[in-house]
Amino acid sequence: MPVLSELSGKMPASPIRKLVPFADAAKKKGIKVYHLNIGQPDIPTPKNVTDKLKEIELDVLAYTKSQGYDRYREKLAEYYRKNHIIVDASDIIVTTGGSEALLFTIGSIANPGDEIIIPEPYYANYNSFATLYNVKVVPVRSKIEDNFALPPIEALEELITPRTKAFLYSNPANPTGYVYTEEEIRKLRDLALKHDIFIIADEVYREFIYGDTKHHSILHQPGMEEHGIIVDSVSKRYSMCGARIGAVVSKNKKLMASVLKFAQARLSPPALEQLLAEEALNTPATYFTEVISEYNRRRNTLIEGLEKIDGIKIGYPKGAFYLMAELPVDDADKFARWLLEEFNDNGETVMVAPASGFYADPEAGRKQVRIAYVLNVNDLKRSVEILQKAVETYNKK
Amino acid sequence: MPVLSELSGKMPASPIRKLVPFADAAKKKGIKVYHLNIGQPDIPTPKNVTDKLKEIELDVLAYTKSQGYDRYREKLAEYYRKNHIIVDASDIIVTTGGSEALLFTIGSIANPGDEIIIPEPYYANYNSFATLYNVKVVPVRSKIEDNFALPPIEALEELITPRTKAFLYSNPANPTGYVYTEEEIRKLRDLALKHDIFIIADEVYREFIYGDTKHHSILHQPGMEEHGIIVDSVSKRYSMCGARIGAVVSKNKKLMASVLKFAQARLSPPALEQLLAEEALNTPATYFTEVISEYNRRRNTLIEGLEKIDGIKIGYPKGAFYLMAELPVDDADKFARWLLEEFNDNGETVMVAPASGFYADPEAGRKQVRIAYVLNVNDLKRSVEILQKAVETYNKK
Repeated sequence: MPVLSELSGKMPASPIRKLVPFADAAKKKGIKVYHLNIGQPDIPTPKNVTDKLKEIELDVLAYTKSQGYDRYREKLAEYYRKNHIIVDASDIIVTTGGSEALLFTIGSIANPGDEIIIPEPYYANYNSFATLYNVKVVPVRSKIEDNFALPPIEALEELITPRTKAFLYSNPANPTGYVYTEEEIRKLRDLALKHDIFIIADEVYREFIYGDTKHHSILHQPGMEEHGIIVDSVSKRYSMCGARIGAVVSKNKKLMASVLKFAQARLSPPALEQLLAEEALNTPATYFTEVISEYNRRRNTLIEGLEKIDGIKIGYPKGAFYLMAELPVDDADKFARWLLEEFNDNGETVMVAPASGFYADPEAGRKQVRIAYVLNVNDLKRSVEILQKAVETYNKK
Repeated sequence: MPVLSELSGKMPASPIRKLVPFADAAKKKGIKVYHLNIGQPDIPTPKNVTDKLKEIELDVLAYTKSQGYDRYREKLAEYYRKNHIIVDASDIIVTTGGSEALLFTIGSIANPGDEIIIPEPYYANYNSFATLYNVKVVPVRSKIEDNFALPPIEALEELITPRTKAFLYSNPANPTGYVYTEEEIRKLRDLALKHDIFIIADEVYREFIYGDTKHHSILHQPGMEEHGIIVDSVSKRYSMCGARIGAVVSKNKKLMASVLKFAQARLSPPALEQLLAEEALNTPATYFTEVISEYNRRRNTLIEGLEKIDGIKIGYPKGAFYLMAELPVDDADKFARWLLEEFNDNGETVMVAPASGFYADPEAGRKQVRIAYVLNVNDLKRSVEILQKAVETYNKK
């Protein structure tokens, strides 16, 4: 057969999906698997959105504009302005999920061999989009002891080379749940302006903040008109992961003209789901109050349970719905597989995401796992109990 | 501001969209514009599909598998088998439109600097996806005098170099409406096996064939298990362009493993629209009979009208819903713009797609336009009448 591309060899396989066959095998044996591994919320999509589905009247399911429906972009701009992100529709291009927003953004700013600095641990798919363009991810280590706060800005600045094109981070962060402070965002702005690099802020978890913490967007900062880019998505916000509606948001007109060319190449984002995303903007505030307080309950339940595990280290999250924990095991990859292949407690086990895939150097995350708290409180309690027993059993082997 | 990527400069702007501002300006002046320029059919989406929308019950609009819903892939495999394309679900990865199918396929097979041979004129967005990976499009000229048949296979073979990775064509073809004969497909197969290159067949117009012509798929050919790739989409088939549901279809397991990695990076294709695409597979055969006979009427109406234009050359289409015509004008780009900016007949004008954007060398298509017959017969009659008057007026300037 013809040889495939080098890229086809280099594209990373999903680090989490490697375990799926073992989970499937466990289920076949009749074992119940609690999924702490995935970012698919169990929270219902807002009812106004699912109701909207019944009201859509169409004769022809036609292409939309490549940048998305005008009306949706207008309403989306309003949403941002309510969040003190002062943009209008022309600063927004609707994409097929946050993934495509990253694909278009990285392609617009970085040449092969260029570098993007990303605090690690980071969302594994950032690797995929960088790899696609042969762009180098330069990690800067954040630590579980600091709850994965921004590393000292000096550590970051040391990594900047003539090939550095951007700093990319998620806020609230996947996989750590860290929420960047206003001071950290200001430092990032100053760094961007000093070195003339882009700041790409993945803000898809914007609403998921617990306690007194506040969300600070990169576009809250003055002076970021040319350097600031938000990558966004409705997936988590409205529990609409399957809609595949995202956006690139920036005041940089040249950048947006480039993103539009990428968007035109794929013609149009999904039409129906843009209508649903538009409706989602009408979701009552009470929906979020309830969802956030539910996640907060889960967060606290999870932490309370995990703290009972001897020798565990926890990165205490302030946002999103993930938590990173360092387990007292030799190898979290082995442990996660063992949980599915060999362990069960009364016919039940848990699936966690080994963190090695969230680090440029897998060794750095060797003992860490990401836990998504997307299960209800009772299931979470039971999951942590299983995890605790599993750690004990594993270490007695 | 930070410098954008070289790619951002090279990504081609849509050749057709350049004219959109002029069309908008004409409309603002109250002029009616008949759109012969776009591939958005006016044909209604099948009623079973739009009805299905009302029946979808969901609590959480969740991610689907990266390769698409299993049930959809199973039913899609059945559809292919009915079309004598013998595949099963594991040979199919659902993509976000045919565009993404191309993105994943080219990324899987070609390195920067590699070459893909494409008969020209070709679908302009092929350039975009090749450009994204810095892959070179090597055109092989097909001629209006031959109705854009496959050029002699020797001409094609001469272009093969050690960097050639694939031959890519659309069948039925956009923008020419040409339908490849079984003999031509066989020659392509022999060429692929002899030189160990992929054949990528964009078969999104599979059903749109007029008269006695038959569609021959690349996967009808024996021996193409490792070398044949179909790029497909529901957009035109069911008039669901806005659904953004496509597919890569191939028996090559290594290729499909690579495509899956690209698919995992973007998590999931749109969920709801996969449900609609699945329902679309239940569309009664009568829908197609009616649609095809409607397009056939339009095709004949269009040709009859165009033949009245002195000095015109027509590439007679056998499929899809496009036709390429060479007009007796100095420059089709100028002419198309003039139609919108300066001409009207009783307050009406037409918009056509200049063909320069469909050729690697724009000069080759300097006098040609693509006409999409996606208007009803009466509008088409009137459009051609306007076009005839316009050509006369333009040449008297």
